[in-house]
Amino acid sequence: MLQAALDLLDRRDVGFRGLTMQAVAARSGVSKATLYRWWPNKAHLVLDAYRSKAARDIAAPLTGDLRTDLQTHLGRLAFTLINLESARTVTEITLAAVEDRSFGDLYRQTLLKERRQAVLDILTAGRARGQVRADADLAVAADAAFGAIHHRLLLTKEPIDGYFIAGLAALIVGGLST
Amino acid sequence: MLQAALDLLDRRDVGFRGLTMQAVAARSGVSKATLYRWWPNKAHLVLDAYRSKAARDIAAPLTGDLRTDLQTHLGRLAFTLINLESARTVTEITLAAVEDRSFGDLYRQTLLKERRQAVLDILTAGRARGQVRADADLAVAADAAFGAIHHRLLLTKEPIDGYFIAGLAALIVGGLST
Repeated sequence: MLQAALDLLDRRDVGFRGLTMQAVAARSGVSKATLYRWWPNKAHLVLDAYRSKAARDIAAPLTGDLRTDLQTHLGRLAFTLINLESARTVTEITLAAVEDRSFGDLYRQTLLKERRQAVLDILTAGRARGQVRADADLAVAADAAFGAIHHRLLLTKEPIDGYFIAGLAALIVGGLST
Repeated sequence: MLQAALDLLDRRDVGFRGLTMQAVAARSGVSKATLYRWWPNKAHLVLDAYRSKAARDIAAPLTGDLRTDLQTHLGRLAFTLINLESARTVTEITLAAVEDRSFGDLYRQTLLKERRQAVLDILTAGRARGQVRADADLAVAADAAFGAIHHRLLLTKEPIDGYFIAGLAALIVGGLST
């Protein structure tokens, strides 16, 4: 059911706005009643679909080098954002989170919190190895990482490519370093 | 006319969505025809109003210390974003820029470009004084600065306060430093 939702979210003629519980049920071969037994509405289903996609596509074994680990992680995150029609769908979801307070709260408590925690885990591991200043604010660094990527995706429309991700990881690791 | 627009944009019962050319004309004591002689529509007027506000409220004399100058600049920018009803209005304008391609293009070519250039000017001055690595990517640093602030404003809803701005300036200056 999650994969059916992801397939539809990546289609230009569907996306987040066009997605219906009916279409996900049809594509995954389950009844609408079954779908609704797991998720009360489309918003919950879509956030769970992206949580499973992120857990599958973004996580990578840590090497122990902070810059390598952050760059790999942000690169994989960026790829999930710009692959296929994802940029448009992620933009729609971000807009929905800003416009609809209850969806925004759910988004903050699930997908956004988990994505942020994954970056904080990498930074915390670097701090434990002495690669990060003791007084550095890891939350600010996580905001700078996500914020810069979202800023390009939503507003500036500049490329989110390997050069950008490498520069962003270098900036943040340099800014945190002892 | 610009000040009349700003006054209305900061009102809870108006904001960007509720603003009309009629109301700006009434408040500033000019005819609608006069208003339309200067701006073809509300979007152009609002962007010019924010451009004038930013030029007036954000610019500060440079001290020659990169961290101080960046922190002062971002702090003044943050204050214009969170003062009165500005957070809601800036969110509405950001949403409009994402949803409406022609407004988005205008926003990128005017207000966003100027705000970005002001930060780049501070970073470039720091580089000329040898406080920034020669190979550092200043555009990435500007994206991290704006992105982190917008990320909190739009998505995480965490405070955009003096601690956050100081941490952000420290991260970026540290990441750029030689």
